Amino acid sequence: MNLTTVREIYRSRETYLDKEVQIGGWVRSVRGSKNFGFIVVSDGSYFETLQVVYHDTMPNFAEISKLNVGASIIVKGTLVATPEAKQPFEIQATEVAVEGPSASDYPLQKKRHSLEYLRTISHLRPRTNTFQAVFRVRSLAAYAIHQYFQERDFVYVHTPLITASDCEGAGEMFQVTTMDLNNVPKKDDGTVDYSQDFFGKPTNLTVSGQLNGETYAMAFRNIYTFGPTFRAENSNTTRHAAEFWMIEPEMAFADLNDNMEVAEDMLKYVIRYVLEHAPEEMNFFNQFIDKGLLDRLNHVLNSEFGHVTYTEAVRILEEHNDEFDYKVFWGCDLQTEHERYLTEKIFQKPVFVTDYPKEIKAFYMKMNEDGKTVAAMDCLVPGIGEIIGGSQREDNLEKLEARMDELGLKKEDYGFYLDLRKYGSARHSGFGLGFERCVMYLTGVSNIRDVIPFPRTVNNCEL
Amino acid sequence: MNLTTVREIYRSRETYLDKEVQIGGWVRSVRGSKNFGFIVVSDGSYFETLQVVYHDTMPNFAEISKLNVGASIIVKGTLVATPEAKQPFEIQATEVAVEGPSASDYPLQKKRHSLEYLRTISHLRPRTNTFQAVFRVRSLAAYAIHQYFQERDFVYVHTPLITASDCEGAGEMFQVTTMDLNNVPKKDDGTVDYSQDFFGKPTNLTVSGQLNGETYAMAFRNIYTFGPTFRAENSNTTRHAAEFWMIEPEMAFADLNDNMEVAEDMLKYVIRYVLEHAPEEMNFFNQFIDKGLLDRLNHVLNSEFGHVTYTEAVRILEEHNDEFDYKVFWGCDLQTEHERYLTEKIFQKPVFVTDYPKEIKAFYMKMNEDGKTVAAMDCLVPGIGEIIGGSQREDNLEKLEARMDELGLKKEDYGFYLDLRKYGSARHSGFGLGFERCVMYLTGVSNIRDVIPFPRTVNNCEL
Repeated sequence: MNLTTVREIYRSRETYLDKEVQIGGWVRSVRGSKNFGFIVVSDGSYFETLQVVYHDTMPNFAEISKLNVGASIIVKGTLVATPEAKQPFEIQATEVAVEGPSASDYPLQKKRHSLEYLRTISHLRPRTNTFQAVFRVRSLAAYAIHQYFQERDFVYVHTPLITASDCEGAGEMFQVTTMDLNNVPKKDDGTVDYSQDFFGKPTNLTVSGQLNGETYAMAFRNIYTFGPTFRAENSNTTRHAAEFWMIEPEMAFADLNDNMEVAEDMLKYVIRYVLEHAPEEMNFFNQFIDKGLLDRLNHVLNSEFGHVTYTEAVRILEEHNDEFDYKVFWGCDLQTEHERYLTEKIFQKPVFVTDYPKEIKAFYMKMNEDGKTVAAMDCLVPGIGEIIGGSQREDNLEKLEARMDELGLKKEDYGFYLDLRKYGSARHSGFGLGFERCVMYLTGVSNIRDVIPFPRTVNNCEL
Repeated sequence: MNLTTVREIYRSRETYLDKEVQIGGWVRSVRGSKNFGFIVVSDGSYFETLQVVYHDTMPNFAEISKLNVGASIIVKGTLVATPEAKQPFEIQATEVAVEGPSASDYPLQKKRHSLEYLRTISHLRPRTNTFQAVFRVRSLAAYAIHQYFQERDFVYVHTPLITASDCEGAGEMFQVTTMDLNNVPKKDDGTVDYSQDFFGKPTNLTVSGQLNGETYAMAFRNIYTFGPTFRAENSNTTRHAAEFWMIEPEMAFADLNDNMEVAEDMLKYVIRYVLEHAPEEMNFFNQFIDKGLLDRLNHVLNSEFGHVTYTEAVRILEEHNDEFDYKVFWGCDLQTEHERYLTEKIFQKPVFVTDYPKEIKAFYMKMNEDGKTVAAMDCLVPGIGEIIGGSQREDNLEKLEARMDELGLKKEDYGFYLDLRKYGSARHSGFGLGFERCVMYLTGVSNIRDVIPFPRTVNNCEL
């Protein structure tokens, strides 16, 4: 159909003013009077709505006046400027065709609904202002990330979702199987006979594409992944989902400083991109979801991220131990309360914490010369805490094997990974950005369930 | 590290000629003589390699001469033009630092390896010319698709991977569970007690994001998905994988013709993009993988796709039934041999086949006025067969319910989907593009295992 979008009309108003236009969209409200009426229409292409004026000269005047919220219509008419009204222009309709009515029990009425209620109708909530804004920004942020890396010649790699290995030797994972769970095939010794499963062995959903990504960085130098990852953690928080998207760049010939530079540059790029491409949505968040949002994001754009070692961070935090549920000490894993304190109270901007004790970080991180800490970096941002975690990778074969021995990891499970250190090893670094946390950070939305179209959490897998 | 990439040097040679540059990369070959030698280096940023000349004035001259293929080095020197040589320039090195040697059993030697062998070392094969080309084009094609839709204001939607529903009521699916398979919890009646599973019910990996995507099209008008999908089909062909990526645009206020226009426009956009952004790689494919490739792709760019109804296509194919393993008749599902015959022999270009019998298509496709066929379209391309499948969706609530009844689908499982027809239904259409098939089409590579970094097929889940 040859329809103009509301976005096109707003963005290129001069092209359309006083011309005939045809739009298709959904009714937000109808106010009919005796001889004429107003329809507010959203076509989903743009955050703002468009007002349509209709008249009793139309054969279906009565039908239009009775339209319920949510009905879909196709409107033909002239776009005219309305200098005295709140909105800049409106359509003087010559034709309003009802494409699909909306039943009277339509769950979205003009009044404001709670986010909790809207979660129960995840197929309809994208029609509301809040979720129009959230999911447009999510889309733009995803694209900005692709654009950032592609402009810099990073190769986008699709690492596998189904995997027979467990990246960090940790994390509760989802199993993937085609076996009949009512009648799981067993071997003579009574254990599961995985030879009868689809892949002939136990398989899981990935928790990270990093190790696979490293193999491609050692071929293409700079690569990134952007795909779903899974955690079967039984945690019911506002920041955890069982299925979420991650971005994992990996760069050969890059050390921890290069890594932090890219992470900071990328985050700023994404912030700039959504501010520029979704100004209406970002203003909406600033007004209705998180009042300080725009100031905070602009502040980030105009400042350099802070840097502090874990050891120094612990020293600072220990002075405030009376304010924490969990007391800080050297060697402890930083909790969200500590992370937020550092970024919100101490630095008042995003901050990289580096050089963590090896005991609380993964086996593949590069050992520092002190033999106690590793070249890790977490990026903490106000309102969220950790948004990025990364490290320089151990590129020395002997040191990596020694560390794996220490941790009891089986080297035969990591043959491909050790090969990267055997054949043309190079210093290299990478990080992971949790995409949902990034969207929460960009929008000020505080529950991860509200930035995922169809969230998956414990006991929740609807639609 | 402040390194220049080989891509930057080739793309902006004037900037670098006669200047000092520093590059990092991997050795493709070393030819040492008494006083000097040549190293061919690839840094993965660019398809072409760069030649480095080194001299015995370097303290590590002997070490360099003994470097094995695959070693990683950092080279400092001056870029000088070589008008009399095959390559346009080379680096006269002042320093060659060995970053990581390559053990003598490096599996990739200078000779050509078979694709079958390379599949057994999926972590190293991206270092070869063929896979450098394949996976760069894969990355560029993915980005081109995002760019195509984003430039047209489509909203990118992440539909869920783990799902409790089965899109088409068909297809073998992977189950997702956190239950102990050695000891599956059972209810009193002996069946599986899914209340003890992570989501409290049986869940699978998605075979399509379409139904979820439709809910967003009814809010944003134009949306697309781009994510992994799964089929647990026990088929060992060159065109099927258990895990693959799909692009599924969905457009409100769009009929089948709009749908085909977008599909054709998008495919041409992607072809144009990779020809423009990866000319070296595309020439390589044309020379070594698929001789007619460039002619074929250019022919597609310069022609309009064919259109034929299923009924007419069957009439044409029936005339050639003696050439087919499976005989064609009205009502049959077209096999790859028929699809390829149509696009390769009859039309000699991509062709849309439309209006299939309802019996061989999914329940949600819009019924045509004849009551026998549905508004479906498959796009067939030479060398592949079906690359895109789509349809206009049934937007009439009564007709959709009647069709579901006919097929014995439970309406209570599709409440959200029916809601879209109850509340502001609008004509809408969409299609699915199998991304791997698209990459095969763009590169001429004939086995799907060679266009997926780490392919998953029956009994195969390595790395």
